[in-house]
Amino acid sequence: MADGNAPSSIEALKSMEPLQGLDSHLGMAIIKIADGYARIKMDLTEAHLNLFGGGHGGSLFSLADSAFALACNTRGYLTVASGCSIDYIKPTGEGDSLVAEAQLIETSGKTSIYDVKITNQNDVTVAMFRGRAHQTSKLVMEQVNDKCLYM
Amino acid sequence: MADGNAPSSIEALKSMEPLQGLDSHLGMAIIKIADGYARIKMDLTEAHLNLFGGGHGGSLFSLADSAFALACNTRGYLTVASGCSIDYIKPTGEGDSLVAEAQLIETSGKTSIYDVKITNQNDVTVAMFRGRAHQTSKLVMEQVNDKCLYM
Amino acid sequence: MADGNAPSSIEALKSMEPLQGLDSHLGMAIIKIADGYARIKMDLTEAHLNLFGGGHGGSLFSLADSAFALACNTRGYLTVASGCSIDYIKPTGEGDSLVAEAQLIETSGKTSIYDVKITNQNDVTVAMFRGRAHQTSKLVMEQVNDKCLYM
Amino acid sequence: MADGNAPSSIEALKSMEPLQGLDSHLGMAIIKIADGYARIKMDLTEAHLNLFGGGHGGSLFSLADSAFALACNTRGYLTVASGCSIDYIKPTGEGDSLVAEAQLIETSGKTSIYDVKITNQNDVTVAMFRGRAHQTSKLVMEQVNDKCLYM
Repeated sequence: MADGNAPSSIEALKSMEPLQGLDSHLGMAIIKIADGYARIKMDLTEAHLNLFGGGHGGSLFSLADSAFALACNTRGYLTVASGCSIDYIKPTGEGDSLVAEAQLIETSGKTSIYDVKITNQNDVTVAMFRGRAHQTSKLVMEQVNDKCLYM
Repeated sequence: MADGNAPSSIEALKSMEPLQGLDSHLGMAIIKIADGYARIKMDLTEAHLNLFGGGHGGSLFSLADSAFALACNTRGYLTVASGCSIDYIKPTGEGDSLVAEAQLIETSGKTSIYDVKITNQNDVTVAMFRGRAHQTSKLVMEQVNDKCLYM
Repeated sequence: MADGNAPSSIEALKSMEPLQGLDSHLGMAIIKIADGYARIKMDLTEAHLNLFGGGHGGSLFSLADSAFALACNTRGYLTVASGCSIDYIKPTGEGDSLVAEAQLIETSGKTSIYDVKITNQNDVTVAMFRGRAHQTSKLVMEQVNDKCLYM
Repeated sequence: MADGNAPSSIEALKSMEPLQGLDSHLGMAIIKIADGYARIKMDLTEAHLNLFGGGHGGSLFSLADSAFALACNTRGYLTVASGCSIDYIKPTGEGDSLVAEAQLIETSGKTSIYDVKITNQNDVTVAMFRGRAHQTSKLVMEQVNDKCLYM
């Protein structure tokens, strides 16, 4: 359940599709958004590679971070990252179809922990990300309605 | 001094300009590469922003990670990240001109620690990144000469 | 299932009770050890507190790290930490009875990811730890049989 | 310079010697405390070892965390950790004399970054720790005068 003190912001986030900014620039798309949850995808092209032709750590981090940001902003109040860590488990490369699934794990006061798992087209986990989120007192809905997004 | 057992790979890395892959896609450019050191830059445009119009964590992480990768591959042997952490210190936004400076801090056997500092156009630190690098037994120069980069 | 190439080391680890070194000094005790799994406990006394009278971050980190070390050494080969992160979720204090449960989450080649959850006497999660483990080619059993532990 | 809005709390911290709680239990002692700075020491005995007879990660983490806590509480306001990471660089063992030096690196609003370096008796760096500190609105001095420490 979303935070009882704030209206759910799931619809507000969905209305932001297609994604803009870095999310759009890297080709991410939303698969599903629910309370404390987001699943998004990104296909690895030449534009996502590192110096030596593998998937760039920054591409995977960006995908996980975006899934985390969507998931932690479903609960009404504008929420920002206060820390995160990533573990790369398998190499990735051009042609891989990645999915990042972010899920609320623990919440205590204004702080919450989200886990994000990135899997490839063979459903193999290629990276794990953990984010710590801090809830502000602003509403997500107002941010969206004020058209202050990317404008 | 570069590792005495391997020829310096600084020239090999410099020959890779203009940068390709994610580095190119995000608009990064090399300012300076030296032994255990790299300084690169990236200007924040609409394509680097997050859901709420600020600099996306993934943009900053990617910049730091690329500076780290360049710095830790100056010493002859192909080197990969085995872990990293990032701390965001100040918000960033469209129009900011960021510089990431990566520097070797400690080295022990095949493991090294690099610190990366990202500053903005006012020379204010906006993020700090720490990377742990693991040296392989392959030469960077061969990777570059074999044209196996992005091909 | 434990790694098929090595005999299970669960019995070897169990034979090390009562725990020694820091584990003993901080009052930890094993509850359960299984394949890729360990659950241990520690009660917080005055000796576990920080400067301001709360549970010291080092006490919680030590408990999580010990559970992680036990869990990742159940699979035959001697395994060492190559990185870890901790998130504190709720404050702790004198009198709290903590349990740390470590579990294998992902494994790829010689690298594995373990999650450790620390809960208090009310079954509330007070901290989460994630460890990255690197498997060596030495057997845990030999380490134990050689009496090289703390001697 | 300490925060101009609060009296320095260096003397208050010094008055807490000898250290208590986990710091005392692990044998730590203060060498020097200054503005945004602390240097403390700890000798590794059998009580600091891990399962396999080396220095326990929790012993090193505790030492670094305590140096960090002292350094970030020199500036008047009670300050708590909001995140940290540690990199182990060289193995340690019984008989090593460790020194942890914590230093303020960056500060922005109520958030600060501290780096802690742990060196051994040969002045070799054995671990590096980075802590993110969050300043509260309480005074350190009151905490000390109220005798609420360990009581």
